[in-house]
Amino acid sequence: MSTPHDHILKSYDTELARLTGEIVRMGELAVNQLEAAIDVLMRRDSKAAQRVIDNDEAIDALEHEVSHDVVRLLALRQPMARDLREILAALRIASAIERIGDYAANVAKRSMALNVVAPVAPAHGLPVLAGLAAELVREVLAAYRDRDAERARVAWSRDAELDAMYTGLFRELLTYMMEDPRSITPCTHLLFMAKNIERIGDHATNIAENVWYVVHGEELAGTRQKRDLTASPQLPDLPR
Amino acid sequence: MSTPHDHILKSYDTELARLTGEIVRMGELAVNQLEAAIDVLMRRDSKAAQRVIDNDEAIDALEHEVSHDVVRLLALRQPMARDLREILAALRIASAIERIGDYAANVAKRSMALNVVAPVAPAHGLPVLAGLAAELVREVLAAYRDRDAERARVAWSRDAELDAMYTGLFRELLTYMMEDPRSITPCTHLLFMAKNIERIGDHATNIAENVWYVVHGEELAGTRQKRDLTASPQLPDLPR
Repeated sequence: MSTPHDHILKSYDTELARLTGEIVRMGELAVNQLEAAIDVLMRRDSKAAQRVIDNDEAIDALEHEVSHDVVRLLALRQPMARDLREILAALRIASAIERIGDYAANVAKRSMALNVVAPVAPAHGLPVLAGLAAELVREVLAAYRDRDAERARVAWSRDAELDAMYTGLFRELLTYMMEDPRSITPCTHLLFMAKNIERIGDHATNIAENVWYVVHGEELAGTRQKRDLTASPQLPDLPR
Repeated sequence: MSTPHDHILKSYDTELARLTGEIVRMGELAVNQLEAAIDVLMRRDSKAAQRVIDNDEAIDALEHEVSHDVVRLLALRQPMARDLREILAALRIASAIERIGDYAANVAKRSMALNVVAPVAPAHGLPVLAGLAAELVREVLAAYRDRDAERARVAWSRDAELDAMYTGLFRELLTYMMEDPRSITPCTHLLFMAKNIERIGDHATNIAENVWYVVHGEELAGTRQKRDLTASPQLPDLPR
């Protein structure tokens, strides 16, 4: 009953399923890295922070592997419309995950800089921000695993919550810096860490957009404005 | 004399050459955006800044076009080792250029926030930083155009200069903030703008690594440490 053509199709689908699993696992590694980075920040543990930084190499290596596998997969048959989308989406999602890993490692790296000075209060805003970012990344990974465009769209729209939270934290940090110049250096690190986490949210929306594109073959409507409100002219209306 | 196989090879090479041209032009657009962003920053021209922000869409659209073309190109023949590398490198370089464009647009966006407050002196450090970044991007684009791995390697190694310059500017900005709390908001914008430019340098090295990989089929040796020294624990040894 089975023709050679069926056989090729089947090996392609098996390969694609295997790759999806690989990408989702890679994504879980990246989320775990983010959570570990926040954990070492709160515990002020520079040794553990160094381990988080070192672990990032594994994600980078996986991204290289995945992108090679994806391109080889394309060689298995003349690609049709959906296959082309799968290939592009897999490459882009793997690249987004690699960058999420980079940002997590960067949070860990900056936490080491914080450990050499006295603790500053606004550090406590970061775990909440990171918690929401991790939730969004997990949602878009699940949406990719199940090719569930609607779940991707919902997570995508929730990035606005993360942006609002980031903007609040950004303002809080500026206020601290103005009140106590000694807090400027540590708060600057916290600003960059918060920005890293906000960028993780952007990559989650990027993954969501790729899931939508795979399923529907078109861009997710009303392409989201990049919403770092702290870059807008409204910001300087701050207390003093 | 010409066989059908020759014909396929030729159309593949023609296509690849066309794509290279497209990617290089896209890269030039991104560098021009960076220069325009710095220009509007120094002239404090919010209207022109908005034009820079709007122009970013053209680069995003080109990246989408390029990545579709690249994947379709792969379908033209069963890919061999070097072709696979070309495909992956083209996708990655287009994506790096798209992000360089994003960072340039972000510099323009933050310049608008600066225009609503009094000028601050350290803004003058940014054009120098951006000038070096633009030079490095142009170098790696030329290296990609000519598949010149050595030229790519030289530009790649010069990213250390950019990192050192960024670290100096970062320290200078912190010092300003400590001396005058009213400068905290504008200096924070300048910090993020400087960071954007430093990231443009990272993407230039990323392009250089891909040129090396296309030509030599291996990673550029001694993969460069990401060198944002401002994230390291040494930083807080600042004047007061």
